[in-house]
Amino acid sequence: MCKVCGDGEHVHDEHDSVQQGRRRVMAMAGASLLAAPVLAAMSPKTAAQEASHGVGKEAFKTRAWAAAGADMRFTPREIERRALRPTDVRIEILYAAICHSDIHTVLGEFGPPGYPVVPGHEIVGRVSAIGDQVTQFKVGDIAGVGCMVDSCGTCENCRDDREQNCLNGATFTYDYPDKVSGGRTYGGYAKAIVVTEHFVFRIPPGANLPGMAPLLCAGITTFSPMQHWKLQPGQRVGVVGLGGLGHMALKLGVARGAEVTVFTTTPGKIADAKRMGAREAVLWSDEASMKRWANHFDLILSTVPESYAVQPFMDLLKLDATLVNVGALGELRVNGLANIFGRKSLAGSLVGGVAETQEVIDYCAARNITAEVEIIRPDQIQEAYRRVLNKDVRYRFVIDMGAA
Amino acid sequence: MCKVCGDGEHVHDEHDSVQQGRRRVMAMAGASLLAAPVLAAMSPKTAAQEASHGVGKEAFKTRAWAAAGADMRFTPREIERRALRPTDVRIEILYAAICHSDIHTVLGEFGPPGYPVVPGHEIVGRVSAIGDQVTQFKVGDIAGVGCMVDSCGTCENCRDDREQNCLNGATFTYDYPDKVSGGRTYGGYAKAIVVTEHFVFRIPPGANLPGMAPLLCAGITTFSPMQHWKLQPGQRVGVVGLGGLGHMALKLGVARGAEVTVFTTTPGKIADAKRMGAREAVLWSDEASMKRWANHFDLILSTVPESYAVQPFMDLLKLDATLVNVGALGELRVNGLANIFGRKSLAGSLVGGVAETQEVIDYCAARNITAEVEIIRPDQIQEAYRRVLNKDVRYRFVIDMGAA
Repeated sequence: MCKVCGDGEHVHDEHDSVQQGRRRVMAMAGASLLAAPVLAAMSPKTAAQEASHGVGKEAFKTRAWAAAGADMRFTPREIERRALRPTDVRIEILYAAICHSDIHTVLGEFGPPGYPVVPGHEIVGRVSAIGDQVTQFKVGDIAGVGCMVDSCGTCENCRDDREQNCLNGATFTYDYPDKVSGGRTYGGYAKAIVVTEHFVFRIPPGANLPGMAPLLCAGITTFSPMQHWKLQPGQRVGVVGLGGLGHMALKLGVARGAEVTVFTTTPGKIADAKRMGAREAVLWSDEASMKRWANHFDLILSTVPESYAVQPFMDLLKLDATLVNVGALGELRVNGLANIFGRKSLAGSLVGGVAETQEVIDYCAARNITAEVEIIRPDQIQEAYRRVLNKDVRYRFVIDMGAA
Repeated sequence: MCKVCGDGEHVHDEHDSVQQGRRRVMAMAGASLLAAPVLAAMSPKTAAQEASHGVGKEAFKTRAWAAAGADMRFTPREIERRALRPTDVRIEILYAAICHSDIHTVLGEFGPPGYPVVPGHEIVGRVSAIGDQVTQFKVGDIAGVGCMVDSCGTCENCRDDREQNCLNGATFTYDYPDKVSGGRTYGGYAKAIVVTEHFVFRIPPGANLPGMAPLLCAGITTFSPMQHWKLQPGQRVGVVGLGGLGHMALKLGVARGAEVTVFTTTPGKIADAKRMGAREAVLWSDEASMKRWANHFDLILSTVPESYAVQPFMDLLKLDATLVNVGALGELRVNGLANIFGRKSLAGSLVGGVAETQEVIDYCAARNITAEVEIIRPDQIQEAYRRVLNKDVRYRFVIDMGAA
């Protein structure tokens, strides 16, 4: 069995050198890189050592990549991680993906950031130490961390697998007040993280690790509304925007047997959408095409990360159907009369709870569903942010922490 | 049994003269008139004659009150009603209530009106003739007509009691293209109307007729979302706006055993709301009071007939809850992030189907629920419109067609 990722089907030699890992890091230069699946790359000495013995439980410093302002420049920085509490898991981070909400945060679009900000909430790594009361993980396991790292665990919503809606306030993974340790949380653009066990996910052996990382936010964010609004096989789902979230929505919709139609502003993404299983892919700017879809959809997932004219998409819903916004933080304007006539709803949805997040990981692992990723080095984060803002990502940047 | 309204519990003498009927017409002058329940008033000769023999089935002219422009001036006008088709019912109109959508139409807020406009879609009257194939009504029955007078009857939505969403286009009661007869429909501000049986409602014997008329729109419009969103006893419902629709929402919510909180801009309505059963009544302008209700409601019905700042009310919804707009035709602006966090929905809802409308009539009749009305003469329509626009109605104007 591989000592690094725990997979029984290959051996350690498959990913036993930093050099080999680095060769897999694809250059940012050049357009439209679709990264091949990549397995965990770490120093063999460190991996073997930590897999068998782990590291200590004391507080430690680790290297992180932090933004000091809204210019999106990231620089290496030593940050402190806490000593392990009894339920804590320490993870050496292998991959952290870049989500648009990382960019929202760095730009202050959620509110004033607490610079320096270390974003990252689509995290995959390897367990290197566990607290005395940890039962679900052992040293050497591959594990994931998503959008949250803590919640009260006792309120009505926490008991109902809605930790994201904890009535006492969930602690989000980065740039969020840490109720226990004080200060603000630092996320996954780092070499290691310490998280209480309840918020650590099991990544099945043999998984494509960079491709799994985006499930921790993009996957659960699009899976959860399909569960809540009970998307059925054969139903018609529209996906607005084909980025990190959009392409996961597409893949998850197709996996459920739904007819998925993608709406994009980028002509170059039409072919990709069809390759990923879309029944059709439509340019918004093509008004004639848009009208063809009036009163057509059972569910629309809007993954656009900013305010836009949403009513034309409301008009594409069937009677009683819902458009779920999972991306836009600002104002959305709808037409009262049009939605009265169709009893249509505009809703929002926020990631998902812990159990549901584990469910989407297992669901995707069982079906070999992963994000399409472009792997970068930590020194390429600023460039990646710019490319995301220019809609030039296919379809998720993943930072290889072994490439630092 | 009363020959006019069919009630076995009183006799014809109780409402046997036009003079008596006119005495019940309350003066428009003076503030806050809460009209006492009034039963049908007609000429005894006409009533007795028509109840026993009916009138002919030929086309006829009838007096109507029409607006020729957006100045809201109404003048008497002879309009043509069609000869009875086999499924048609002719109704001599006793009462027609004034709904805000009548005003929207006259002012052109639904689109350019086809002046002259004869509004009115909360209609109660007495059957005076029936077509050969009519089975549910006989001459002399008290009957109602609501928002629609026709639909295809064969499409998926019509078969599913969603005539208002007829895929071939429902025919609304007034100022709407009449697919069969041509021209535009004329509504209930008239002495008589001819409507196909499927769109005529049974009004139970003994009902308070002016108080029942508003059920045909205000009642069904607020009842239907309570049914669709499954409002349960003990749940918390908010009602935004206390006018015609709002006071019906309040009464219907209380009847279901819900805890109803009313939000109004009119201090003078606070006491009324409590008298009608509201647990609390809140002025929107009182920001401190508004904040008390954050994350409180299982359902909010927004009856405000125009665009307004709806997000503060979205913030009052619990997780997963819905605000249903049944009044505003224009733009509504919501905050993406706030609704993402609570998985909250903004929906619309349009009246209800035929079966559901009969259901609310029977539901209210069984529980003695009626609208609170102020009865006016046809020559007072313009003044009534102005008072509605000034929020000076408690809580529905009803035109007594016998007072013309």
